[in-house]
Amino acid sequence: MSASPAAAPGRPRDPEVDRRIAQAALDVFGDAGWAGFAMEAVARRACVGKASLYLRWNSKEALLTHAITAGLPRVSDVDTGTLHGDLVELATQMLDLYVGSSSRAAIRLNLEAEAIPGVAEHYLSMRKAQVVAARAIVRRGIDRAELPGTISVTLLLDTLIGGAMMHALTTPADRRAALAGDTAAHARLLVDFLLSAVTAVDA
Amino acid sequence: MSASPAAAPGRPRDPEVDRRIAQAALDVFGDAGWAGFAMEAVARRACVGKASLYLRWNSKEALLTHAITAGLPRVSDVDTGTLHGDLVELATQMLDLYVGSSSRAAIRLNLEAEAIPGVAEHYLSMRKAQVVAARAIVRRGIDRAELPGTISVTLLLDTLIGGAMMHALTTPADRRAALAGDTAAHARLLVDFLLSAVTAVDA
Repeated sequence: MSASPAAAPGRPRDPEVDRRIAQAALDVFGDAGWAGFAMEAVARRACVGKASLYLRWNSKEALLTHAITAGLPRVSDVDTGTLHGDLVELATQMLDLYVGSSSRAAIRLNLEAEAIPGVAEHYLSMRKAQVVAARAIVRRGIDRAELPGTISVTLLLDTLIGGAMMHALTTPADRRAALAGDTAAHARLLVDFLLSAVTAVDA
Repeated sequence: MSASPAAAPGRPRDPEVDRRIAQAALDVFGDAGWAGFAMEAVARRACVGKASLYLRWNSKEALLTHAITAGLPRVSDVDTGTLHGDLVELATQMLDLYVGSSSRAAIRLNLEAEAIPGVAEHYLSMRKAQVVAARAIVRRGIDRAELPGTISVTLLLDTLIGGAMMHALTTPADRRAALAGDTAAHARLLVDFLLSAVTAVDA
């Protein structure tokens, strides 16, 4: 097993430790924001030594950038072969994100990311890539004649992504565990509801 | 002109000053959060003396509670007589809020309000009242036979409110002024799109 280029020499990286650090970084950022984001707090939360954090990332900016990349869903990975399948997966990703433990970090990125040097550019280009990938899902549906070419891609995606986010954020605490246990079921209801709008507009 | 009960004796309150203070309080909270929320910063932002702030509210908690009540839209005020009109007004409120200057405060309340003693209870009861009022709008539409009784009130409201919020938050900076100038036009597009879904489900 060869170490990845970013790893310290002679120390093969443990992906499980990387994952735990990314989640701890999102947790600390979600709770305390950039003002309270410190390598020490992340190391404590991830139960790793501070040295082992610095071996991997030499700055707070690099660590948060890694956590954003590793810990948030990637729309570009969605390609099930059908429009319905792709939209359900996209809605499921959003429900999982906003009902899950990274929800506070995702909301806080909206507020703070653009003002953090070294993170802003990465976050903005990732957001842009997400929008491009989501629009590509709908375009593929139009190409496969699953959707009329006249539909508003913007309205369909705003209501799908916004509807999933709003549902996760407004589900009362006592029903959140049930939603988290089967986000795909709600995603299907949401997609069926919205696709009937698109079909009706066409008819 | 008689002073309102909360005003200092002999000092009639100026509603324009109250409004300016509420907006300044939301601006400071939106930028700096509860950790950076100080009477002095709000007074400076509103261009009023610190004494005149303390004459009105004797604590940071009371000031932020006032700003939330006065500065954020109230769904309970929406009643135009038709379902279409009510939903357009509701969507317009959300677009105005998230494309406007109080957007950061509204997002930050999601993150922080529950942890601020003296503000949490007020914020949660206001959120609850908003949900009840929004559901009442849809119920009135069903009573007037503008909607089938079988529709999912939750899906309709999640996609309407979430879709408006998402649209405002993802509109690129160079197009935000155009959206802010005519939020009602986009609200109508959104409502027409969603109501066609409801009709299609019924057909």
